[in-house]
Amino acid sequence: MASILANHSVEAALEKYLPEEELKEVKRVLYGRPVEDIGSELPQEAHQSAKDHNFALQAYRIAAPPEQIRSPRLVKIGLIQNAIVKPTTAPLQEQRAAIHERIKLITECAAQAGVKILCFQEAWTTPFFFCTREKYPWVELAESAEDGLSTKLCQELAKQHNMVIISPILERDSENMDILANTAVVIDNHGVVMGKSRKNHIPRVGDFNESTYYFEGDTGHKVFQTEFGRIAINICYGRHHPLNWMMYAMNGAEVIFNPSATVGALSEPMWPIEARNAAIANSVFTCAINRVGTEAYEHEFTSGDTKAAHNEFGEFYGSSYVAAPDGCRTPGLPRNQDGLLVTDVDLNLQRQIRDKWCFSMTGRYDMYARELTAFTSGDYQRPIVQAPKQ
Amino acid sequence: MASILANHSVEAALEKYLPEEELKEVKRVLYGRPVEDIGSELPQEAHQSAKDHNFALQAYRIAAPPEQIRSPRLVKIGLIQNAIVKPTTAPLQEQRAAIHERIKLITECAAQAGVKILCFQEAWTTPFFFCTREKYPWVELAESAEDGLSTKLCQELAKQHNMVIISPILERDSENMDILANTAVVIDNHGVVMGKSRKNHIPRVGDFNESTYYFEGDTGHKVFQTEFGRIAINICYGRHHPLNWMMYAMNGAEVIFNPSATVGALSEPMWPIEARNAAIANSVFTCAINRVGTEAYEHEFTSGDTKAAHNEFGEFYGSSYVAAPDGCRTPGLPRNQDGLLVTDVDLNLQRQIRDKWCFSMTGRYDMYARELTAFTSGDYQRPIVQAPKQ
Repeated sequence: MASILANHSVEAALEKYLPEEELKEVKRVLYGRPVEDIGSELPQEAHQSAKDHNFALQAYRIAAPPEQIRSPRLVKIGLIQNAIVKPTTAPLQEQRAAIHERIKLITECAAQAGVKILCFQEAWTTPFFFCTREKYPWVELAESAEDGLSTKLCQELAKQHNMVIISPILERDSENMDILANTAVVIDNHGVVMGKSRKNHIPRVGDFNESTYYFEGDTGHKVFQTEFGRIAINICYGRHHPLNWMMYAMNGAEVIFNPSATVGALSEPMWPIEARNAAIANSVFTCAINRVGTEAYEHEFTSGDTKAAHNEFGEFYGSSYVAAPDGCRTPGLPRNQDGLLVTDVDLNLQRQIRDKWCFSMTGRYDMYARELTAFTSGDYQRPIVQAPKQ
Repeated sequence: MASILANHSVEAALEKYLPEEELKEVKRVLYGRPVEDIGSELPQEAHQSAKDHNFALQAYRIAAPPEQIRSPRLVKIGLIQNAIVKPTTAPLQEQRAAIHERIKLITECAAQAGVKILCFQEAWTTPFFFCTREKYPWVELAESAEDGLSTKLCQELAKQHNMVIISPILERDSENMDILANTAVVIDNHGVVMGKSRKNHIPRVGDFNESTYYFEGDTGHKVFQTEFGRIAINICYGRHHPLNWMMYAMNGAEVIFNPSATVGALSEPMWPIEARNAAIANSVFTCAINRVGTEAYEHEFTSGDTKAAHNEFGEFYGSSYVAAPDGCRTPGLPRNQDGLLVTDVDLNLQRQIRDKWCFSMTGRYDMYARELTAFTSGDYQRPIVQAPKQ
């Protein structure tokens, strides 16, 4: 029998085995102050939808102490993780239509739950075929960020449900010599495309051969001022680069989304660390989203790991979560089931934690600007101290 | 009865309660690949010393796959965490002498265990009196980095045991208008003072009122080329600043030490995250060291937390650990007992992980140098996208 962790999460395994008092203390150290489970506040129809359509629905609140002058700025953030629906060999239009249908359905549940900012996983409209080194047929699924089919669907959903939608897709920029890009499209709650933000750091690690498909993003560190808060998107591998998170925060982000696709053998022990560290270091909310399931491809491929050629590359382990400026975090969604994570966050916590910890005032950014400039100047002299002659 | 966690660590609590298979999986996700417990390889006299003198002795190996051309570069790193020995009201010279005696003893055990680079905790020669806002009497314990009593002791020990010693002290720089500084002195394995590295980021958080005692360090991001590897020291609060870790790594550090002093209510959930994230993000070994015990002061003080004046400010929670470039880590030392953590690391792992993950090649440091320079220029225009008019 598979372990509880395999079926769900570390958190579920701890809940099952640790005695109450021990559990409380272990969770304090591992996850920070308790976040409130608000599952019971969600409408019955949302829970019914999750049950009927076999996706996990978890909901939490990360509150902040009340202030005298500012009102709480509670906003419900939704993260969706999902497996592809059809086999990777199905006709492309069927593959996309099935994913659209599934996401539409989970988005409706998010609306019922009161979500105001919803983010899908990286390249949500396609299988994650970048392991294969094949381009066709799936690059055909790349779309215009501004008016592709998936953007149009998101516009409809955003308008209908009065929610901001972040739609990370494989972008085809036909106005720009047909380049491909890994891009998050931001659609405001009136259904208007606000703009796009491209993946800044592109992996060349194991099966994640992405640098042969698209290149380092050229959209910098944009922040989107929505009606519900300032948001930014740090796509997938960018989570390994603390500077990437930092620059979004410096530009004013209150919530930074990290739509991802990553598999267990490669990155699972890093997953709970990186987005959470970014939340702490930058006093922001961070939202880590990973897809689930396995994806099989018709033509075998290798992984640069001495192993034989194969047709699938392991399990995307889900485990999507939200981390807060004070270092607390929600439990993760399951490792192996589609899911919607609803987190009601009070954005006021950001400034409160900045006032407490002072990271943004103790950062000495001028020193680092000088050092990084010197470092990248081409003739950098490292300050390495050698042992004196005796 | 206090919980296992209170008495020791999260890891000990998991070991006790989780069934074997579940434990293995939970540890994989929480701590990465298993590190080898090498306690049984240490000489009996080392274990006897730990037992006789009531400090924990834990030892692990973080190995790397063999290479064809480079030999393994195994080096045993030692971290010491400890409580102060005498009350904070004892005559200063007695307080210092008692700590010297205790550290000398644990250092001898480290030598028996084969440690080649040993690091003590932050301000190891004094109580952590920076909560009190009082200066006297303890500032009298500040010493010259170059030839203070504590440096002389470390020189003797380093030479005697053929080990590099990192000695973080409260420095009195009498050549420089008597300033105080929070400084790590690096002594090579021949007993020669290589130099010093000052704390770059100074906290003003809760009881950690340190900015009234000493200021932001002026020694930049020096790296020390020792016979056993390239090391750097990121003191205490600097661990919250990812740029600080990064700059040491950019300058060539293979192992970055983080001698600290921090209490449970403030930072414990961040502790397992920050040094480990730095190990991952920079492909370095990081060593987090925290003191243990509580310290009582004669004159009451307040903590800026609405609570009544008091004479102690909570428990330093120990939990010192080593994290590796691939994200794995050792278990922590106990939360509430003096301890020596011995970790035999293969420094070759650094380059292997850099070759695998490519963070140092995908970092786009030129982009960040430009952005940080603009950010600190005084008229920075944040790239904030507003919703278009409809």
